[in-house]
Amino acid sequence: MDRKKALELVKPHLTEHRYVHTLGVRDSALKLAEREDVDYEKVELAAIFHDYAKFRPKQEMRQIITDQNWDKKFITYGDELLHAPAGSYLVEKEMGISDEEILSAIYWHTTGKVNMNAMEKVLFLADYIEPNRKFPGVEETREEAKRSIDGAIIMALRNTITFLMKKNQPVFPETLSTYNDMIFKKKKMEDDESNGR
Amino acid sequence: MDRKKALELVKPHLTEHRYVHTLGVRDSALKLAEREDVDYEKVELAAIFHDYAKFRPKQEMRQIITDQNWDKKFITYGDELLHAPAGSYLVEKEMGISDEEILSAIYWHTTGKVNMNAMEKVLFLADYIEPNRKFPGVEETREEAKRSIDGAIIMALRNTITFLMKKNQPVFPETLSTYNDMIFKKKKMEDDESNGR
Repeated sequence: MDRKKALELVKPHLTEHRYVHTLGVRDSALKLAEREDVDYEKVELAAIFHDYAKFRPKQEMRQIITDQNWDKKFITYGDELLHAPAGSYLVEKEMGISDEEILSAIYWHTTGKVNMNAMEKVLFLADYIEPNRKFPGVEETREEAKRSIDGAIIMALRNTITFLMKKNQPVFPETLSTYNDMIFKKKKMEDDESNGR
Repeated sequence: MDRKKALELVKPHLTEHRYVHTLGVRDSALKLAEREDVDYEKVELAAIFHDYAKFRPKQEMRQIITDQNWDKKFITYGDELLHAPAGSYLVEKEMGISDEEILSAIYWHTTGKVNMNAMEKVLFLADYIEPNRKFPGVEETREEAKRSIDGAIIMALRNTITFLMKKNQPVFPETLSTYNDMIFKKKKMEDDESNGR
């Protein structure tokens, strides 16, 4: 599917504000992708369709997650988690996109997951730092992203977890696991470097 | 075992600073216990011995956790977690305290656990708010403890998780699970109240 067609297809499913965000995520994802071993066209499609399900009825999204036997915590840990897995399902069924890399990046773009591959990382981070985002900490994360994609993802995860806890909201356990996973890998890399490996 | 004997027994295992902290935890725990359905004498013993293993060699504590087949994450998530489970083991072996409630409160006093019972809650919170503690957020947590033990534990967990993430340290998953558990129970209680139940 080419870019123009993809944008035409997604637009009716989004508000104007969310469409502008989507274009921002697309631009940021392509920029981050320059430094990662990922397929440009796939990254672009993943970004264009990442919020495809954002405005679907919550009950429809919950039903998809239940029917697919996916982790019930996507339902119990806050409604803003629904659109990521539900989106991956609907993008496949309705848009005919069957590429597993694209679908997985969409599935995990809100929560993160342990052992993210390059495309999952790029979409997760692009969604957080795209130019229209305005929240405390986003500018530092953008700066860090210029130095290290992993470092910026750690900042984004930390900010998200802290933000949720400040609002007395539950925190999706896989989001903390993603943070721990990336911290342990960072420590290991630093240890290996200081050991001259 | 009476209080005087217990204090005599624990003292040689602690530094002066840590002994003063232990007395603070004992006082705070007894105060919190007035509002909970717990055995005073048991709470006092749990508090007196909670840091019993604090100054044991790390390798000895790791060996205990390995030999007991306890969660390896107590070893991999930071050395400051070792003394809680290792302490519960050593207090039983060396001090002859076999009461499961006391041992469990010591075991979980650093990390917290899902579904804490009253004694586990009292020791966890007393360790955080005892009068000698000085760190950002402790005063608010002391104030909240006067209103709600659960509310204060949520604050302590949130502060601890935020503090660890700021230092780029991993966060013990059960600590986040404890936070989530208490948030879900709080929400349920608020929902039940607003439904007049």
